Amino acid sequence: MLGSTHGTLTTDSRRARVIACGEQRPGPAVHGRTDDPADLDVSGRPLYADTPDLARFFRPESVAVVGASDAEGRPNTGITRQLLAWAERVGARVHPVHPSRAAVFGVPCVASVAELPEQVDLAVLLVADPLPLVEELAEAKVRFAVAFASGFAETGEAGAEAQRHLADAVRRSGLRLLGPNTNLNAFERFREDLPGPAIALITQSGHQGRPVFALQELGVRLSHWAPTGNEADLETADFVSWFAEQPEVGVIAAYVEGLKDGRAFLLAADRAARRKVPVVAVKVGRTETGARTAASHTGKLTGADDVVDAAMRQYGVIRVDGLDELQDTAALLARARTPRADGVAVCSISGGTGAHVADLATAAGLRLPRLSEAKQAELHQWIPEYLSVANPVDNGGHPVGDERGRKIIDAILADPAVGVLICPVTGPFPPLSDRLVRDLVDAAEETDKLVCVVWGSPVGTEPAYREVLLGSSRVATFRTVGNCLSAVRAWLDHHRFVSGYRSPFDDAPRTLSPSFRKAEALMQPGRQLSEHAAKQLLRAYGIRVPREQLVTSAAAAVRAAGQVGYPVVMKASGAQIAHKTELGLVKIGLTSASQVRDAYRELTDIARYEGVALDGVLVCQMVEQGVEMVVGVTHDELFGPTVTVGLGGVLVEVLRDAAVGVPPFGEEQARDMLAGLRGRALLDGVRGRPPADREALVEVVLRVQRMALELGDHIAELDINPLLVLPRGQGAVALDALVVCR
Amino acid sequence: MLGSTHGTLTTDSRRARVIACGEQRPGPAVHGRTDDPADLDVSGRPLYADTPDLARFFRPESVAVVGASDAEGRPNTGITRQLLAWAERVGARVHPVHPSRAAVFGVPCVASVAELPEQVDLAVLLVADPLPLVEELAEAKVRFAVAFASGFAETGEAGAEAQRHLADAVRRSGLRLLGPNTNLNAFERFREDLPGPAIALITQSGHQGRPVFALQELGVRLSHWAPTGNEADLETADFVSWFAEQPEVGVIAAYVEGLKDGRAFLLAADRAARRKVPVVAVKVGRTETGARTAASHTGKLTGADDVVDAAMRQYGVIRVDGLDELQDTAALLARARTPRADGVAVCSISGGTGAHVADLATAAGLRLPRLSEAKQAELHQWIPEYLSVANPVDNGGHPVGDERGRKIIDAILADPAVGVLICPVTGPFPPLSDRLVRDLVDAAEETDKLVCVVWGSPVGTEPAYREVLLGSSRVATFRTVGNCLSAVRAWLDHHRFVSGYRSPFDDAPRTLSPSFRKAEALMQPGRQLSEHAAKQLLRAYGIRVPREQLVTSAAAAVRAAGQVGYPVVMKASGAQIAHKTELGLVKIGLTSASQVRDAYRELTDIARYEGVALDGVLVCQMVEQGVEMVVGVTHDELFGPTVTVGLGGVLVEVLRDAAVGVPPFGEEQARDMLAGLRGRALLDGVRGRPPADREALVEVVLRVQRMALELGDHIAELDINPLLVLPRGQGAVALDALVVCR
Repeated sequence: MLGSTHGTLTTDSRRARVIACGEQRPGPAVHGRTDDPADLDVSGRPLYADTPDLARFFRPESVAVVGASDAEGRPNTGITRQLLAWAERVGARVHPVHPSRAAVFGVPCVASVAELPEQVDLAVLLVADPLPLVEELAEAKVRFAVAFASGFAETGEAGAEAQRHLADAVRRSGLRLLGPNTNLNAFERFREDLPGPAIALITQSGHQGRPVFALQELGVRLSHWAPTGNEADLETADFVSWFAEQPEVGVIAAYVEGLKDGRAFLLAADRAARRKVPVVAVKVGRTETGARTAASHTGKLTGADDVVDAAMRQYGVIRVDGLDELQDTAALLARARTPRADGVAVCSISGGTGAHVADLATAAGLRLPRLSEAKQAELHQWIPEYLSVANPVDNGGHPVGDERGRKIIDAILADPAVGVLICPVTGPFPPLSDRLVRDLVDAAEETDKLVCVVWGSPVGTEPAYREVLLGSSRVATFRTVGNCLSAVRAWLDHHRFVSGYRSPFDDAPRTLSPSFRKAEALMQPGRQLSEHAAKQLLRAYGIRVPREQLVTSAAAAVRAAGQVGYPVVMKASGAQIAHKTELGLVKIGLTSASQVRDAYRELTDIARYEGVALDGVLVCQMVEQGVEMVVGVTHDELFGPTVTVGLGGVLVEVLRDAAVGVPPFGEEQARDMLAGLRGRALLDGVRGRPPADREALVEVVLRVQRMALELGDHIAELDINPLLVLPRGQGAVALDALVVCR
Repeated sequence: MLGSTHGTLTTDSRRARVIACGEQRPGPAVHGRTDDPADLDVSGRPLYADTPDLARFFRPESVAVVGASDAEGRPNTGITRQLLAWAERVGARVHPVHPSRAAVFGVPCVASVAELPEQVDLAVLLVADPLPLVEELAEAKVRFAVAFASGFAETGEAGAEAQRHLADAVRRSGLRLLGPNTNLNAFERFREDLPGPAIALITQSGHQGRPVFALQELGVRLSHWAPTGNEADLETADFVSWFAEQPEVGVIAAYVEGLKDGRAFLLAADRAARRKVPVVAVKVGRTETGARTAASHTGKLTGADDVVDAAMRQYGVIRVDGLDELQDTAALLARARTPRADGVAVCSISGGTGAHVADLATAAGLRLPRLSEAKQAELHQWIPEYLSVANPVDNGGHPVGDERGRKIIDAILADPAVGVLICPVTGPFPPLSDRLVRDLVDAAEETDKLVCVVWGSPVGTEPAYREVLLGSSRVATFRTVGNCLSAVRAWLDHHRFVSGYRSPFDDAPRTLSPSFRKAEALMQPGRQLSEHAAKQLLRAYGIRVPREQLVTSAAAAVRAAGQVGYPVVMKASGAQIAHKTELGLVKIGLTSASQVRDAYRELTDIARYEGVALDGVLVCQMVEQGVEMVVGVTHDELFGPTVTVGLGGVLVEVLRDAAVGVPPFGEEQARDMLAGLRGRALLDGVRGRPPADREALVEVVLRVQRMALELGDHIAELDINPLLVLPRGQGAVALDALVVCR
């Protein structure tokens, strides 16, 4: 796939190397259409999404159908019929293209694209091979095409090759293409009678979009559906960016099998975050480890799916696993407004139900504020004294069967601590639940707070469910408590996220830092650097390393120890040494010249015995008393260089407790990475140890990111292990480092 | 609550103390009805469930209704009507009891219980206070009563007191009581036309059982419903035990708010496991930390809910959170037979759907075997060559619209590697899905393998779903992929569990070990033991501790070091010392007499300065080179003493990586506890370290369990921290211990 991150990262390292520090650096055009150097960051990746205007794609005024048919039993006949019906509904003009027919379904044909009577907005290509048409379509100034043909990348390498040819032709032509291997989902019959913000849907597999499309039958508005198919040209990211700008779109729901271009996705998600439009996505691949090569510890800590997870989290994209969660979360986000408060109130006709839902809500990270004494007294006007109304509110059942029900609902919604009311209807009991549900629907129309109902009956044909709740555009209705709670949580989290959102692209470095030239001189293409050289590289980027000297004689070692200061650590140093400790190539806590002399002899003896080539022995300052962490750079197929931070020492291997950051990211996101570690409390100081210098750790993570951005094309792997984070105010020191050059 | 674990564990420690070793020990009757000493384990807890025969409760031949009414608008009138209708259906005799009425709904009344014309099986008590009736009912030899009255333990302390009085009266009387605060759910209208094994339902809150009851509308058979209410007498455990013995019961579904008696629950779960009847339970309280007091590390590692989790896991009880999962898992377990293989095949009309479901299935821990080349060739007779049929099977859609569909299904089900077929119907497309669904229903009738359908449409009113799938007693139908996968996983896991199940009650110790008398002499009621005494206690139970001597002079310390062997560790020892390391009261790695002398002086100086009372200084063998673990005993409100094992050192505090065992448990379960630790790989040896002596660790866990069982009433807390697990074959050594006596 041309235009992908993968395709670009391996190129142009030579070009980058000759750019002067401080200069802007012309990089490859990752998105395929941007090549203004001002729009690129220091790694050569774009800083702005080049979003096509898709208005005429979704609402074309004129459409050509190449391969139109009205012959009985041909698949193209059904598609032609569907398109004609759609065109009639929206008032679009259709021009069938057929080499020999005068008309199809009574609509006059032209013999070829060149003979189209007007410049059409969209061409629907029902031919087995769309490639030969591309140039002709471009010459006819057709804006968009949809290619149905299958047999491309989805079938294997030969198909992928054909798809690359198609993509190349399209890129050269200026035409924008949806597909191949797609369909007319964008031109289905959307309900136009539903009010409120809508879901805009993007699916790579059309079939997997059906359940979200079917939400319209349950009263949830859908405005667009982009079935992106194989994404030879137009991709998920293009639609995310464009949907984020459309006023009627309340939420973007996406079903993604594979992301075509990591950076394009980040830029699109950034656009949505800036516009405060939530994106809910299924991304298939939970069990993917991805095609990654890594000799370092940090490289093995995370898989390709962890990186996707991290990228989505950085931009507030809500990732879900099941299509049911995609439906439920998207439906809620389309209905909910800005939260007025993050407190959740639960009101039920049974104390047992309330306690159960409250337990699960708390476990899901939601906050159930205790209602004030005054509010409780107000509720006890309508609810018997012996029932608890502190939250959850146990209304006892009977009150919701008469006019008290609405008063209870309104009183809860009027509480300033409450932003969400959840009413579980565990089992429908029409004398109570019919009225309750009507009251909830009415109350929801008059409040700007969120009203949720969980319909617990597995049957789902009950009139109250089907007629009242589903007719409301304000009540969010769920079939399971779990989906309700995770959707509410996603909504509250998303608002918290966007209200504090600052785009990392605004601050992404565009010019090489002065460190780059120093670093460049140290690189040895294709080789692993010695520990000493790797540490020089870290120093070039302002990361502290112990005082150390590389020596090649016992006498020099003793002199070095005197300058470095006792006690010292001595290590064998060489370009290809790994597992130094296991081989006995590290000596710690040396306190005298004679110990240093002995250590020198022993290290060189072991190296000789093990057949390890040394460039010398390192005499290092001994640094103790800190928290061992690891920080590293790993190359991800989709997103390029990523930064990993995790717990160090034995914990690296045993617990794989690490977090990934996908550049570009800022200080806040680096802090979030640390907050996501299970062992984060180690940094706060345990067992009487002082708190660690968390700020220094954040700074190292950011400096390593800078290295990843500037040296990403030169570095296959970078691994600081351990990074010793000293007590607060004392910084962090890289005790060992592994760098493999590309 | 009398009869609860909590009520009994604090009693009779004096009695236990005078029992000779080797003797059986008469303990308190935990379950309230068993007091044959032969039925008790060494801790005084019962070894057998005393299950009442509930046949006549669920199918009484004669019923008295105390408080029967036919007056318009009274709640009792509705209940009376419901009961009369039920009696008519099943042919039971009803005797209304009313002090002044001659008849209710035309049925002749008696004035009091004493005047009942026959010995009735069941009395339904519709009176505000059932207590005064208990004796009268017992005299009339009534077997069972159901008490509707509320206002008991659910309302607070006064109600709980009234409930204790009621429970006492019932226990003395011999009557068995359901409730109070319950209803007639047991006598609802159950569908009798549904075939196959049934769900038996137990709910503490009747309302929360409604969704499972409603499953009958979807064709799932339900045989019993026990709404246990406040459980003054009959409790969840009684019904689990009895249901496990009923031939028509395929699965027990329980909704539990609080367990009344931990041991009774374990015995009931054991009964179900022996009978291979799965139990699926919601247990409210995910966010409970429980009322526990703990000064030790292990005591803080786990909460009350973790203990419930562990207890359920030990007996194969399937714990779920939502009522939807309770429904779906129970419905599948009622339909599924013994697995023929654990391989899962996924077959769909879209490659995208198949890949998505396969990804989620793998993430859920299911195994999707790759189909053999021969099987794939067979499938390609009906499925185009370009579609992948290796598993997931992409049938491309069209083949399932004709006779090829059934052949594809049968071919997959005939594969010996496949035990489960999952067909997701993402969006119904009647020309294909109607026939597909009929074929699945037919195929399911003829196979002994499990056939699952996931109906992805959120609408749920489609004819294929409502008429065909729901009419099948063999196809397990789900609305979400997530619930389908977790139910399949639960089914496979349960069969694996019961096939290897060995009841821990069969091996539970009944007699005090010889260790007990040695241990007893060391206990100091109400006090924390010194480290030295605590280690003596461990030694009494065969747990290895370092060679050590307690000394009270520097000269004695030097002598001791000579006998213990250099290098030594020295520690201040006293009854109430905690945090020795932080206070500087530990000196390690002492290699000479002079270092020992200095250390003695320094330790006593610090103790004086810190105001710590010493009983001496410990001179201990220095043991290194192992994996630090913690093992401890914590007192749980519900289950009594429990055993915790976790990662030691700093990890205890930071990662809380620990597993709980609820006694009695065997070697296998101790091994499972270790397997559940996130850091379990530490025991396998990392970074070139040798594997640890896992067998020795298991042995320590079992010995600590023995201590918990024999000394449980004497020990408030026991904490071995760290237990150093040495390399394989070298054992494990308790380096420090904390024991608080009760």
